[in-house]
Amino acid sequence: MDSDDDVPLILTWDEANSDLLTEDTERVDENGGGGNYDIVNNAVISTPGPQNYRAQNVSLRQSWEMNYQEAAIYLQEGENNDKFFTHPRNPKALAAYLFAHNHLFYMMELLTGLLLMMLSLCEAPAVPSLRLDVYVHATLELLALVMVAFELCMKLRWLGFHTFIRHKRTMVKTCVLLLQFVEAIVVLIRQTSHMRVTRALRPIFLVDCRYCGAVRRNLRQIFQSLPPFIDILLLLLFFMVIFAILGFCLFSTNTADPYFNTLENSLVSLFVLLTTANFPDVMMPAYSKNRWSCIFFIVYLSIELYFVMNLLLAVVFDTFNDVEKMKFKSLLLHKRSAIDHAFQLLVSRQRPMGVSLKQFDGLMRFYRPRMSARDRFLTYKALNTSGAPMLSLQDFYKFFEVTGLKWKARRSGEHWFDDLPHTAFLIFKGINLLVKSKAFQYAMCECATISVLPVSWETVLSSETPFKLFHVFMCFHVTADVVVAINGVWILVETYTLNSGHSWSRFVPWSYIVFLTIYGVEVLLKIAGLGPTAYFSSGWNLFDFSVTVFAFLGLVALAFNMEPFYFVVVLRPFQLLRLFKIKQRYRNVLDTMFELFPRMASLGLTLIIFYYSFAIVGMEFFADVVYPNCCNTSTVADSYRQFNVTHGNNTVLEEGYYYLNNFNNILSSFVTLFELTVVNNWYITMEGITSMTSHWSRLYFMTFYIVTMVVMTIIVAFILDAFVFRMNYSRKNREPLENPEDENGIVFEVEVSRDEILATLELYKQTCPGVSSLSSLQGVLQAMDRSGHSSLVYQGRRSRTKSDLSMKMYEEEMQEWYTEYSRENLPETDQSLERDLDSPVSNPCPFPEAQLNSQTGPHSIN
Amino acid sequence: MDSDDDVPLILTWDEANSDLLTEDTERVDENGGGGNYDIVNNAVISTPGPQNYRAQNVSLRQSWEMNYQEAAIYLQEGENNDKFFTHPRNPKALAAYLFAHNHLFYMMELLTGLLLMMLSLCEAPAVPSLRLDVYVHATLELLALVMVAFELCMKLRWLGFHTFIRHKRTMVKTCVLLLQFVEAIVVLIRQTSHMRVTRALRPIFLVDCRYCGAVRRNLRQIFQSLPPFIDILLLLLFFMVIFAILGFCLFSTNTADPYFNTLENSLVSLFVLLTTANFPDVMMPAYSKNRWSCIFFIVYLSIELYFVMNLLLAVVFDTFNDVEKMKFKSLLLHKRSAIDHAFQLLVSRQRPMGVSLKQFDGLMRFYRPRMSARDRFLTYKALNTSGAPMLSLQDFYKFFEVTGLKWKARRSGEHWFDDLPHTAFLIFKGINLLVKSKAFQYAMCECATISVLPVSWETVLSSETPFKLFHVFMCFHVTADVVVAINGVWILVETYTLNSGHSWSRFVPWSYIVFLTIYGVEVLLKIAGLGPTAYFSSGWNLFDFSVTVFAFLGLVALAFNMEPFYFVVVLRPFQLLRLFKIKQRYRNVLDTMFELFPRMASLGLTLIIFYYSFAIVGMEFFADVVYPNCCNTSTVADSYRQFNVTHGNNTVLEEGYYYLNNFNNILSSFVTLFELTVVNNWYITMEGITSMTSHWSRLYFMTFYIVTMVVMTIIVAFILDAFVFRMNYSRKNREPLENPEDENGIVFEVEVSRDEILATLELYKQTCPGVSSLSSLQGVLQAMDRSGHSSLVYQGRRSRTKSDLSMKMYEEEMQEWYTEYSRENLPETDQSLERDLDSPVSNPCPFPEAQLNSQTGPHSIN
Repeated sequence: MDSDDDVPLILTWDEANSDLLTEDTERVDENGGGGNYDIVNNAVISTPGPQNYRAQNVSLRQSWEMNYQEAAIYLQEGENNDKFFTHPRNPKALAAYLFAHNHLFYMMELLTGLLLMMLSLCEAPAVPSLRLDVYVHATLELLALVMVAFELCMKLRWLGFHTFIRHKRTMVKTCVLLLQFVEAIVVLIRQTSHMRVTRALRPIFLVDCRYCGAVRRNLRQIFQSLPPFIDILLLLLFFMVIFAILGFCLFSTNTADPYFNTLENSLVSLFVLLTTANFPDVMMPAYSKNRWSCIFFIVYLSIELYFVMNLLLAVVFDTFNDVEKMKFKSLLLHKRSAIDHAFQLLVSRQRPMGVSLKQFDGLMRFYRPRMSARDRFLTYKALNTSGAPMLSLQDFYKFFEVTGLKWKARRSGEHWFDDLPHTAFLIFKGINLLVKSKAFQYAMCECATISVLPVSWETVLSSETPFKLFHVFMCFHVTADVVVAINGVWILVETYTLNSGHSWSRFVPWSYIVFLTIYGVEVLLKIAGLGPTAYFSSGWNLFDFSVTVFAFLGLVALAFNMEPFYFVVVLRPFQLLRLFKIKQRYRNVLDTMFELFPRMASLGLTLIIFYYSFAIVGMEFFADVVYPNCCNTSTVADSYRQFNVTHGNNTVLEEGYYYLNNFNNILSSFVTLFELTVVNNWYITMEGITSMTSHWSRLYFMTFYIVTMVVMTIIVAFILDAFVFRMNYSRKNREPLENPEDENGIVFEVEVSRDEILATLELYKQTCPGVSSLSSLQGVLQAMDRSGHSSLVYQGRRSRTKSDLSMKMYEEEMQEWYTEYSRENLPETDQSLERDLDSPVSNPCPFPEAQLNSQTGPHSIN
Repeated sequence: MDSDDDVPLILTWDEANSDLLTEDTERVDENGGGGNYDIVNNAVISTPGPQNYRAQNVSLRQSWEMNYQEAAIYLQEGENNDKFFTHPRNPKALAAYLFAHNHLFYMMELLTGLLLMMLSLCEAPAVPSLRLDVYVHATLELLALVMVAFELCMKLRWLGFHTFIRHKRTMVKTCVLLLQFVEAIVVLIRQTSHMRVTRALRPIFLVDCRYCGAVRRNLRQIFQSLPPFIDILLLLLFFMVIFAILGFCLFSTNTADPYFNTLENSLVSLFVLLTTANFPDVMMPAYSKNRWSCIFFIVYLSIELYFVMNLLLAVVFDTFNDVEKMKFKSLLLHKRSAIDHAFQLLVSRQRPMGVSLKQFDGLMRFYRPRMSARDRFLTYKALNTSGAPMLSLQDFYKFFEVTGLKWKARRSGEHWFDDLPHTAFLIFKGINLLVKSKAFQYAMCECATISVLPVSWETVLSSETPFKLFHVFMCFHVTADVVVAINGVWILVETYTLNSGHSWSRFVPWSYIVFLTIYGVEVLLKIAGLGPTAYFSSGWNLFDFSVTVFAFLGLVALAFNMEPFYFVVVLRPFQLLRLFKIKQRYRNVLDTMFELFPRMASLGLTLIIFYYSFAIVGMEFFADVVYPNCCNTSTVADSYRQFNVTHGNNTVLEEGYYYLNNFNNILSSFVTLFELTVVNNWYITMEGITSMTSHWSRLYFMTFYIVTMVVMTIIVAFILDAFVFRMNYSRKNREPLENPEDENGIVFEVEVSRDEILATLELYKQTCPGVSSLSSLQGVLQAMDRSGHSSLVYQGRRSRTKSDLSMKMYEEEMQEWYTEYSRENLPETDQSLERDLDSPVSNPCPFPEAQLNSQTGPHSIN
């Protein structure tokens, strides 16, 4: 038995070894004796005697299980980009780690964070309809804070005190927590809210939660882009100051000029001018005195707005690019290092260079508990490209590329209706061909075009106008460009017709119903022809579907005389978006849009977090400051005025609506901040509030402007980067991205034979006695029986991620990084490889218990 | 003699051949017989007899001269990116070509173009002070047009009718010329200007002139970026229309909302909203009715402004990048092809693979007539890197890299004062060391810092405050960052002090004079230490110098009580820019700024050309339309109102200044268009004019907005591209760009020995009998005699251009392009190489006369 211990346990796929496999399983039967324990027969080498064989097996098995779990944790840390110094160090920590790393706990974190942020809806300057009593919201807050404290305790338990102290983000969170706790208690005792600017720190609780990783990354990227940004900002301010002095010198003699009469005003005017918000106005008094004074403003704007601001974007874009690449590199190497760690835990003394299916399966049971046995096996096969009996480290490095795959048997035919009876098959086949034909697509385009025509369908049919022929011609033969352009004009014409007629709001032209029917038929045909799964897997079809369904719902709503009829009208032009998909560039743009969406959403969330903090500060300082007819001493008084004007015999309320841009509650604050973000006329809000409070209020607005400028610049840089990246990618890899097949993302194919399945089934029967998990494998066998083939091909699919694209883009650099990385890390790996030969080779950062086991066990050497 | 005909004529630099050289020159003396003709002794092969030897020589020499000239023209075409199909085909064309290709002619073109554009200052809606009578400006115009016609005639003569017709730009110019001619005559006859919108086409005459090549390139780039731009623009408009319909449906019920009451208004409002110019206002009526209506606007702006507009930038940026690269490629290959052509013209039958100094020199006499013989020789040496007796094609390919070099003998020492007597040398050496020391630089920084301090120098000296020490400490030890940041604050504080005191305008603190003296001394020291040439070759020193000189001039102006005293005050903060040069990033940014400047200027000119066309159209349609108190029916009436308001006992004229934004003359139009470019409040101008004319006026403004959006997007893309390019470049080539030595650009070094100079001198004496051009070479000999060395090293320098940077960036791609290019072009080159052996090998696109010569000459084969 010792002699074939070094023989890999299972699965040497060539027939020559298939007898070895069966022998192996027989032997297992002898040894295992039907007990509860699985037999780790390859771990037994130079056994002292049979008496402590079972005890050894037990401890060995526990030791392996420990290793599986730790390897799974390493891989998880690699995936989540958790640093290894937060790795759990002992069983208590492990328990806490496991407790703190599941979706329930994450949800709790998220909800607590959200609750805390939501509280500001009900606190002191509350949204009227949501106002709560002080004791209610203070109690709620205390509750949420207690929950946060509990979460932090779990983290402390898992990390240990030392690591906890070293973990900066957690420490900040703890401090903020303490502060909020004290304040909440003070509020409860005094039964009234005091000036609580510290509420602006609440987003920390949200940002820290697991699901907000993207937001954290954005914040980090923003902070990394700050140093160069600030440098250029200083340059900007420097020029501003110089021009402010010059402007003061030039224009302060003009008494009619309120913008430059003091140096402070001069500075503020030029700051606002930087945003262009007061542009021609700020120039006008000086311009009316002397026409040449416009040169001052033109030079200022040319330098500041058109040069330095663009430079700002350029610098941020450049830094952003660099940071993105570095981030990708560090993530990649972190994952690789995680895989290294996990690999060390999975190899044994006889097989220091490989991981067997058994070990891999053990790992996957911890890493993806929900994964079926079949999928675990297929994943193993997908990794094992060399066909060698075990996974080498090189194979294992691809771990993260294959874990997310969804496996499906590849059918011999590609249609969903292949299994149907012959007649049905022919019908569906016909539909399939029809639906896939270019003619069908163009016909639908034509429908889309005609359906939005200003002339109704009847007139087209009855009139002698060559409209219809023209359209058919256009759709079939002219480039998409022209179609889209002409349709844009059509829409305009149509809307003007609508406008003049005003008839749209009462009756639906029956042509519209006809077209809706056509669309409905198209959707049904497509679903029938392609199969529901294939149909709904394309974003474009999904779009078609939803537009049609919404239009139909609108029609139903109209039939029952419901209110929001205009949706039908509005949704009609959306049909035109179908035309956009014909043209290559729009597909690219819209696909990029969809790809960008998750990242854009996280950027939006980041922006909202900034908004929140500023909103709290704004509410604390400026709540209920502006109201109609306030600010009469200010230069922007008109914008806040509200008075009745009598024109002839009817009195009209003339309103300067700006009193609505206030900080009276958090929702108003958000709207006000959005207006400040858009920048136009922001100085009216600023001046209004400044005139009711103090000059220092301007600091708030200017800070906000600069902060949003940073975030917005980053957003622009991000869109630029993503788009240019995608373009470069599609240029680099001639394979067109817009190929619809390609939308399905990454595909791996694995062929499994009957023998392999049987062998694996045997192995699994020993290792995990629960029968339930084996049903998936037995399903494979049944499928083989049904089809009569001795092997089946399985396809694993997952959607393409940014990381996949990056990998292709940085192919060359990646090799450099890897060699650099292995140069730094290989020596110690080699060392650890030499340490012991038997059983789990090493626990580089181990559970002491497991270490104990492997050291006290009889099979350890030295 | 036949035997050594294949021996290269001159300059085989090893000593072994030096006797051959002298023999050669002796032989020349025999043959040439002191006549006027230089002896092309290597062209004589298988001569039939001595009797027609001289006649042959003459025709041969003419033939060579022809070839030199044509080669020079080819190289010129390569440099100017003129297509080869415009190459002159016959002697008449050549004469016209030479006439049309000199700076005088270019100047004439430019001045004519400018004159035509300037005319609009004096034509019908003229600038009041420049108004001319109709017959005057019409006559001037006719004159200018006649000049343009003359230029076109020259071009026709040079290009030939067929090429002329094919050359699109010239054809357009001709048509416009005819039109303008007719119109100018009509104006002269009627003695009054009619509606002359076609004047908007005048910039064509300017754009077409040689010096505006950069503008042409910009325009081409803009047009190339248009297709993707228009695609995204359609998307933008599409969403706009949808939202306009939706907005109309939602808000038209609100009678207090003037922005959405008709569909047209709804569309216009959303178009203006796209520019954010009417932002919170457009939302306010709806927002005051229902707070949730803000969602409509937030969604609209998020999609249109923050997503699609950025996408627009991304698409343009991407296209721009691509176009830049393609342009560089085509330019590079064009140059290479020009060099190929020229090379073919310079090789002879015996030396089909190389160009000798003699031929090269002949070429350079045509290519750079002003170049001295020494420089021609040095350029040849710089090209001839292999040390072979002749230039191979590979050597010759570097032609454009070395032609611009400025040659200077490298001194053994590096200081300008090395030749001075010992004491003076020691003094200057000391100054040199002082000036170059870090301590000196920091001390000057400190001066800059202190000189802008709010407290005057006396108080610093007398007070107990540790200001001075603090500053010394700061400047020497703290990073530049902090220095700059603190100084920014200082400036602010200072300006506020100024503001409160108001004392600045009357007297100069003597501290300021002290500092100015210090700066003066610094400048003098630096000039003394580094030598004027070295000092002024650095942009930063130039900047220091000019700031100091201006400050000094301001002081003088003050001493004589002149008006513009504020310049002194304003220039003081500029001293702080010295601090910026300490910090790496600012050096980078400012260097990039200086590098970008020429290109930015050409982009600015492009913009001005668009402005001009729009201004003409605006003037024709909207001149004298708006005036104070006009537009009372419009929603923006307030902005045009002008009335007297009595506050207490003083009456103030309240003005809505917008009537100043008019199209009454070309200068006003330019200012108005600039305001429209800045976009803020542009709708006030638009609505004002719309209310006085028709709805269609909006088309003008919207078109202008879109056009400037394109140009501005291109400018942004350009700055982004240039900056990112430079950053990538400096990352790729670790060699730091900011190294001051590197500022001097590209350096070539060539060592020449006495023998070489003598040999060359001999050669030149034969080829060009004029003695004047040889003085430069004799100067070299004298320099050698003086220094006592037998060889001298010469350095050729030129500033680094974008093309040099691009070459380094695209190093890899360039090799691909070259191979691709040679694959396409080599076969024909080989063919032509085989054609004949003797004398000028071929004229691939030749002067027939030269061809005639080389074919009828006795030395031609076949």
